[in-house]
Amino acid sequence: MGYALSTTVERGFDDTLTATREALAEQGFGVLTEIDLKATLKAKLDVDVAPQVILGACRPPLAHAALQAEPSVGLLLPCNVVVRSVDDSTTIVEALDPQVMVGLTDNTALTDVADEAGRRLAAALDSLA
Amino acid sequence: MGYALSTTVERGFDDTLTATREALAEQGFGVLTEIDLKATLKAKLDVDVAPQVILGACRPPLAHAALQAEPSVGLLLPCNVVVRSVDDSTTIVEALDPQVMVGLTDNTALTDVADEAGRRLAAALDSLA
Repeated sequence: MGYALSTTVERGFDDTLTATREALAEQGFGVLTEIDLKATLKAKLDVDVAPQVILGACRPPLAHAALQAEPSVGLLLPCNVVVRSVDDSTTIVEALDPQVMVGLTDNTALTDVADEAGRRLAAALDSLA
Repeated sequence: MGYALSTTVERGFDDTLTATREALAEQGFGVLTEIDLKATLKAKLDVDVAPQVILGACRPPLAHAALQAEPSVGLLLPCNVVVRSVDDSTTIVEALDPQVMVGLTDNTALTDVADEAGRRLAAALDSLA
């Protein structure tokens, strides 16, 4: 079972992060949370890692439908989208594949929600390439 | 494959949320993100759901070790801990089982990190009962 939708973008990190936020908004996802992992690990452990931000993307109608089908699905929300730097002109953007929700819960009532979320996230990633 | 560590607490929601934050801190987890799902769904969709908060828990040394073993593991970070109300005197607290990281990635280099995270999350949940 794969767990990531992924694309490689031939742009720098900051540009790609901005474009990713726009692409998610275009597909109806709000960003509810944002973790600057590089800054967090530097502050907490004084270690250096490549620029990496975890965006918590949520499309409220899908989140609501998922909750109604599976009360514990909050454990898998929001949908993480990670933007991480490879080098100055290459950035990877990945999203947690929403099919993971169906696989982990073994709840087929989540299939439609996962399919729609997956289509929208794949469209957002495609638009970055 | 189960995906949740879970406990049922015979206390109200607000008390349990406070106790959960304390129990996570006791086990070395910081809370990097917090989503009030009830408030979010009310604001965005004008629907009413039971009180529910998603805490994004992170123990930086474990996050760093996980990243070194699996570059895409940010998709599964931070570890979600969900506090949700059942009724006025009953609250469920659940954590995403860190073994999900090993199962989804099929990367046994994450086993030690997942084991330690799981032990600490289970201890936090046990302390609430």
